[in-house]
Amino acid sequence: MIPRYSRPEMTAIWSPEAKFRIWFEIEAHACDAQADLGVIPPAAAAAVWERGAWDIARIDEIEREVKHDVIAFLTSLAENVGDEARFVHQGMTSSDVLDTCFNVQLARAADILIADLDGLLAVLKRRAEEHKYTLTIGRSHGIHAEPTTFGLKLAQAYAEFDRSRTRMITARDEIATCAISGAVGTFANIDPRIEAHVAEKMGLAVEPVSTQVIPRDRHAMFFATLGVVASSVERLATEVRHLQRTEVLEAEEYFSPGQKGSSAMPHKRNPVLTENLTGLARLVRGYALPAMENVALWHERDISHSSVERNIGPDATVTLDFALARLTAVMDKLVIYPETMQANLDRLGGLVNSQRVLLALTQAGLSREEAYALVQRHAMAVWQSGGQTGLMDLLLDDAAVTDRLDPAAVRAMFDMDYHTKHVDTIFARVFPD
Amino acid sequence: MIPRYSRPEMTAIWSPEAKFRIWFEIEAHACDAQADLGVIPPAAAAAVWERGAWDIARIDEIEREVKHDVIAFLTSLAENVGDEARFVHQGMTSSDVLDTCFNVQLARAADILIADLDGLLAVLKRRAEEHKYTLTIGRSHGIHAEPTTFGLKLAQAYAEFDRSRTRMITARDEIATCAISGAVGTFANIDPRIEAHVAEKMGLAVEPVSTQVIPRDRHAMFFATLGVVASSVERLATEVRHLQRTEVLEAEEYFSPGQKGSSAMPHKRNPVLTENLTGLARLVRGYALPAMENVALWHERDISHSSVERNIGPDATVTLDFALARLTAVMDKLVIYPETMQANLDRLGGLVNSQRVLLALTQAGLSREEAYALVQRHAMAVWQSGGQTGLMDLLLDDAAVTDRLDPAAVRAMFDMDYHTKHVDTIFARVFPD
Amino acid sequence: MIPRYSRPEMTAIWSPEAKFRIWFEIEAHACDAQADLGVIPPAAAAAVWERGAWDIARIDEIEREVKHDVIAFLTSLAENVGDEARFVHQGMTSSDVLDTCFNVQLARAADILIADLDGLLAVLKRRAEEHKYTLTIGRSHGIHAEPTTFGLKLAQAYAEFDRSRTRMITARDEIATCAISGAVGTFANIDPRIEAHVAEKMGLAVEPVSTQVIPRDRHAMFFATLGVVASSVERLATEVRHLQRTEVLEAEEYFSPGQKGSSAMPHKRNPVLTENLTGLARLVRGYALPAMENVALWHERDISHSSVERNIGPDATVTLDFALARLTAVMDKLVIYPETMQANLDRLGGLVNSQRVLLALTQAGLSREEAYALVQRHAMAVWQSGGQTGLMDLLLDDAAVTDRLDPAAVRAMFDMDYHTKHVDTIFARVFPD
Amino acid sequence: MIPRYSRPEMTAIWSPEAKFRIWFEIEAHACDAQADLGVIPPAAAAAVWERGAWDIARIDEIEREVKHDVIAFLTSLAENVGDEARFVHQGMTSSDVLDTCFNVQLARAADILIADLDGLLAVLKRRAEEHKYTLTIGRSHGIHAEPTTFGLKLAQAYAEFDRSRTRMITARDEIATCAISGAVGTFANIDPRIEAHVAEKMGLAVEPVSTQVIPRDRHAMFFATLGVVASSVERLATEVRHLQRTEVLEAEEYFSPGQKGSSAMPHKRNPVLTENLTGLARLVRGYALPAMENVALWHERDISHSSVERNIGPDATVTLDFALARLTAVMDKLVIYPETMQANLDRLGGLVNSQRVLLALTQAGLSREEAYALVQRHAMAVWQSGGQTGLMDLLLDDAAVTDRLDPAAVRAMFDMDYHTKHVDTIFARVFPD
Repeated sequence: MIPRYSRPEMTAIWSPEAKFRIWFEIEAHACDAQADLGVIPPAAAAAVWERGAWDIARIDEIEREVKHDVIAFLTSLAENVGDEARFVHQGMTSSDVLDTCFNVQLARAADILIADLDGLLAVLKRRAEEHKYTLTIGRSHGIHAEPTTFGLKLAQAYAEFDRSRTRMITARDEIATCAISGAVGTFANIDPRIEAHVAEKMGLAVEPVSTQVIPRDRHAMFFATLGVVASSVERLATEVRHLQRTEVLEAEEYFSPGQKGSSAMPHKRNPVLTENLTGLARLVRGYALPAMENVALWHERDISHSSVERNIGPDATVTLDFALARLTAVMDKLVIYPETMQANLDRLGGLVNSQRVLLALTQAGLSREEAYALVQRHAMAVWQSGGQTGLMDLLLDDAAVTDRLDPAAVRAMFDMDYHTKHVDTIFARVFPD
Repeated sequence: MIPRYSRPEMTAIWSPEAKFRIWFEIEAHACDAQADLGVIPPAAAAAVWERGAWDIARIDEIEREVKHDVIAFLTSLAENVGDEARFVHQGMTSSDVLDTCFNVQLARAADILIADLDGLLAVLKRRAEEHKYTLTIGRSHGIHAEPTTFGLKLAQAYAEFDRSRTRMITARDEIATCAISGAVGTFANIDPRIEAHVAEKMGLAVEPVSTQVIPRDRHAMFFATLGVVASSVERLATEVRHLQRTEVLEAEEYFSPGQKGSSAMPHKRNPVLTENLTGLARLVRGYALPAMENVALWHERDISHSSVERNIGPDATVTLDFALARLTAVMDKLVIYPETMQANLDRLGGLVNSQRVLLALTQAGLSREEAYALVQRHAMAVWQSGGQTGLMDLLLDDAAVTDRLDPAAVRAMFDMDYHTKHVDTIFARVFPD
Repeated sequence: MIPRYSRPEMTAIWSPEAKFRIWFEIEAHACDAQADLGVIPPAAAAAVWERGAWDIARIDEIEREVKHDVIAFLTSLAENVGDEARFVHQGMTSSDVLDTCFNVQLARAADILIADLDGLLAVLKRRAEEHKYTLTIGRSHGIHAEPTTFGLKLAQAYAEFDRSRTRMITARDEIATCAISGAVGTFANIDPRIEAHVAEKMGLAVEPVSTQVIPRDRHAMFFATLGVVASSVERLATEVRHLQRTEVLEAEEYFSPGQKGSSAMPHKRNPVLTENLTGLARLVRGYALPAMENVALWHERDISHSSVERNIGPDATVTLDFALARLTAVMDKLVIYPETMQANLDRLGGLVNSQRVLLALTQAGLSREEAYALVQRHAMAVWQSGGQTGLMDLLLDDAAVTDRLDPAAVRAMFDMDYHTKHVDTIFARVFPD
Repeated sequence: MIPRYSRPEMTAIWSPEAKFRIWFEIEAHACDAQADLGVIPPAAAAAVWERGAWDIARIDEIEREVKHDVIAFLTSLAENVGDEARFVHQGMTSSDVLDTCFNVQLARAADILIADLDGLLAVLKRRAEEHKYTLTIGRSHGIHAEPTTFGLKLAQAYAEFDRSRTRMITARDEIATCAISGAVGTFANIDPRIEAHVAEKMGLAVEPVSTQVIPRDRHAMFFATLGVVASSVERLATEVRHLQRTEVLEAEEYFSPGQKGSSAMPHKRNPVLTENLTGLARLVRGYALPAMENVALWHERDISHSSVERNIGPDATVTLDFALARLTAVMDKLVIYPETMQANLDRLGGLVNSQRVLLALTQAGLSREEAYALVQRHAMAVWQSGGQTGLMDLLLDDAAVTDRLDPAAVRAMFDMDYHTKHVDTIFARVFPD
């Protein structure tokens, strides 16, 4: 995670300020609940909320001494709250604060990612509608196959990111839990009702059973989900990169008038944003593995997960947020060239309809072998002309064809409506409202 | 995936027999739907069901020639069905069959994995109830922390695998889709109603929008989920491995009387099953990555995913099935030693209660500093005795303590019920019924 | 690893036959050395070599009973050797046999992979020489950049696989060690000279210090190296896939005359082999991770590495062998279209030389700004004509140009020799002999 | 990479200051070589060295405008150098600077990592010598096996990190190359002698053939190597964590007197440093994968590798540097408890010698079955006494034993020298000087 690939809102979640604020809220809500149970004086809880303040420089200073971040924070807090501070954190263990805070951060990060996906989906829907019937060649193996529409390509991307959105919601649910259960999760020194109160106030669910820590299978699932979403980013980015190739050029990343490309080489507009997204996807995928290795902590906890999470917590969420925002911008402004799509579609002189012709001739009475031989002969001629000669013209000039099919029928086999007749059906599935 | 780590039911899903049967069903159901729409004669559809048969050796022979597995199958099928076979596969593309079949296989594999988890959960629940109140030391960082119960450890495992189960159900939903949409997903040559019929008959949902293939983000999510479940397997396996250490020996994998261990070295019972599970978890995790890399296929499809899936489809599901079954067997028969748990718990002479003593002394009027000094002095003596001298005895012998706390109160601080008082609460959360 | 992507020579290394033969040789050589030291009777060693035999079905039968593969093998061996068999395996531990055998297998696998690379390098060199001066457009970001030659592309691939070859030799050295050091590596029950003898006979180096096992950092390095080599396979495969795209078509995988493609669609020749290689590369990369996780075995060994290695040992080596062989075949027969390369090179009407023109005009006295404006104007005209109008012609028609540069100089800027003048230099670096 | 896990020397390599200095040196050396060839005036080259300066804030400002980091740097440089600046960068492409700089940074990072390893090796050697004969139990599967020495454990670690050192040197060689070859690697606009000169001055080898970029298989190998080294860090860290367990306590991370642990719980010294190292190893391993995915760039380059490298370049090297330094400090000060090692060794009452007894009894004339039965009976008694009753005493009390073996022979079988007799041999292998 580096500033170049970061956005402020997501980065802010991982700032010391945000972290300490969450720590404070956890502690203060816990005080409220402890006061309600009569464990600490109500005035103490009130004092915490009223005079609760801390100083990051001071916390750093204390931490250098005591080498314990939660103690350092509590000390700085106590310096502001005064005497009532001794009721803070009572019966709690550091992990109660740290783990609950981390989950709050991840849940908030998930909220941003979900909003990112909403933004991307809106753009994809708009562009899909816009190009619902824009014909383009469908390719398998990079080779021309049959016609499709550019809108269908975008509908596919929409459906994929709609699944991403559902996955992110599930991932958020996985992670949005609160544990305030003490040193080994037994609640020996703290009533479970404290946990319930803090959970509710922080917008979390109660972790049904924890050890000293919240179990890391939740986090593994979270980061694995981010890896899958990033892989979908890579897919759409790869599509744009392909479409922008010099020889294809059916679409281009937007290039602002002032942007300094190569002024003397107008063709040198590189799909650098989507290439960048491809790299970012690799990073986010890579973070899923250490998260999975974090699951098997020893006994009631070891702290090996911590160094991993201090890195990949921000790294994965900030990078994916940036990637989704960048992808949204790319798709929003993507310059689409329907004429080039049509030209590419025409490039093979109608060969993409060979199968249909073959079928029609067979149905019109030719044997399978005769039909094959006929079509193959013309197809080869078209191919050798580099698509300059069209298959339709050759067929219309061949009596063996026109004896069996009338010209209108021949022409109909090259009718593109054949390929788009179910576009509405598919759109209705993808965009149900 | 090797026979040593495979179970027959899961392996059968990936057999040629199973695969061709699914191919056949997809084709035959498609014929039914085509007949209903009047595209092919009803008699043809009936013939397919009646005379549908194929021969694997024959398919292999044909495939060696035509290098196309679906064509080879259809040819063998045609040799049995006869003339009506020409109506089979009409308007379909190979991927329609292959991808739908793969998803049927993955969904069936998921069903087995879910059943495996059910079996594991049942065992964990039984063992958890059995040892609900069996005291044992909770450890953080491998160091004794505070008491907990062995039942709570198992409840934690139960909750984790219950989440695994939910994840597997979600993963199954992700993957259980059917696409019969033609060469680039436009339904140009086949009516979407065929897809709907086949989907329903095969127990799948309709894929809202496909290209030539079903989008691979679904599969990435599926295999990533398996990786997370495997990581939870590793966690519980690691716990058993720790507990079986010579110096700990609180539990042991069951060792059958006839099993040839080292007959002259009765201690040499190695946790080989859980070590094996640790390795299997590494494998399953590793398969998640190529699955994520499979997402970014080029345009409407390339076939790079295929070699990956031919391997990790069976590898990941067979390995995880075997691992879950093995873990279930290990936990079912796990030999648990409550006496050793108690002995280990006693090993530190009550030091694990130091914090409680400290708190009590402070509440009884000692300053925080005085209380610390007092407890620390006794704690060090206990520590240096290797736990032979108990903290409770030292406290009861110290007037500075007994002046402030009566002996009953001192003894109460060493009462284990303190640590188990919320076990019922936690169990009620984990096992709600 | 599945038959579809396996070659017999590599697969044979991992057969039970090969494994038991290696086990036998290790044991028999150890007997020789033990006899030399006077630990066992020379006749016993001789008997082992003379009557040494075993039966796989019998071994399986015994293993089902004793659940220990080495004991099962030794029992079957003893049934053939007779009484002298009691001197076999004396002072050794199972891992001495298993680990040394695994390393023999990996070293042999490395030999095949190195030979594979030799074969690939020979093909790449031949094709590079063949197309040393075949002009083609160099592309950055998928966009036309400057001309290069197809031979240079292949020289780059050659240099990369030459590095792969060096890496494989290093990886072989890493892995080719022998340990016969007993239960915890102390040689308590066996003289180090036995190890030295066996190592020499098996073509291995002595492992300087082992525990019960050979340290797994060696294996991690081995499998990581395979992952890197596989990534280079992916790179060249990706290049072929790009070149075969319908719109580019500068090269094609060979398509045999008899091969059943789509007879009516002559363009539908898909780069399925290189797509397949892309998938295989993902698999091999994925195996590197569990190998790295295998390093941190507990204390003097745990057996978690075993299940991993039983899988990835064959999986990684067989898959990479198959991939290298397939890539060699693809490159050997790659159909190369120099005319299409030239046509693509001409596609932009000489725009790829804009920078050179700009420089020449500046040197001829135009200000940087004037030169830019001039070139940009013509470049845009060329671009808008889709390359039909050539930049050179426009320049030759522009007095602002011809006033400063004579026509020969203008033409010279479009001379392709400019781009190939250092091809010999580079070839001399890459192919030094 | 976060400050918490970073050391200044390594971090400095990745600072903007260091990067721009390297860029400058590459450009200035290139000017020298261009001047030598007469391409630019010698005075220009001299001016660059004399007045070469730049301002990071200014560079940032320009980059925000032109969105190109190399142009921004060159502009700032030109503002200081003046008119002669127009001769800078002539014929070069941005990647020439960027890639060569990245390799300089990686080579310098490798130098630090090699020095780190030297430091670690020195410590391991010292501690190994110190505990060369310190007896300790060797464990397989976490279960007591046979005695070894703590020095041997450390010798094993030494040998492993010595291999790491060799690997890092190889990795450095892989990466220490220089390419100044122009837009697609053809040297069309720049003489290869410029590259040779810059390479020599920057301490790099010439890249034999590049495209626009230096091939990324080199970097993949570099980062994969870091992942393997990190895995060895994890192994030794895991050993320490095991040894520090409450029940084992054979060694402990050093805990400074002033360090605030749990003052009332003297046992609560957690192996947090080695746990932390375990997590850091997971991170470094994870970075290897995106590096491998970076290899297959499209054609002569795409820029997808860049975002990956901007992250993992610093992340992997800074994290591994920190980890090696931390591990060195841990091992340097590791508190080792030979008495506890002896106590643990004694824990099983001599059972670890059962095999030796068995062998001796057989050689003394008992049948294998009789010997087994005898040893097994006594072994079980020892085991059931929890090691309180010693095997040696039981044997010495058993006439069936003393009839066949004299007491001295029985005692000799419990002599620890048996296990250490080859320690010198092994040390001589590991520490050859």
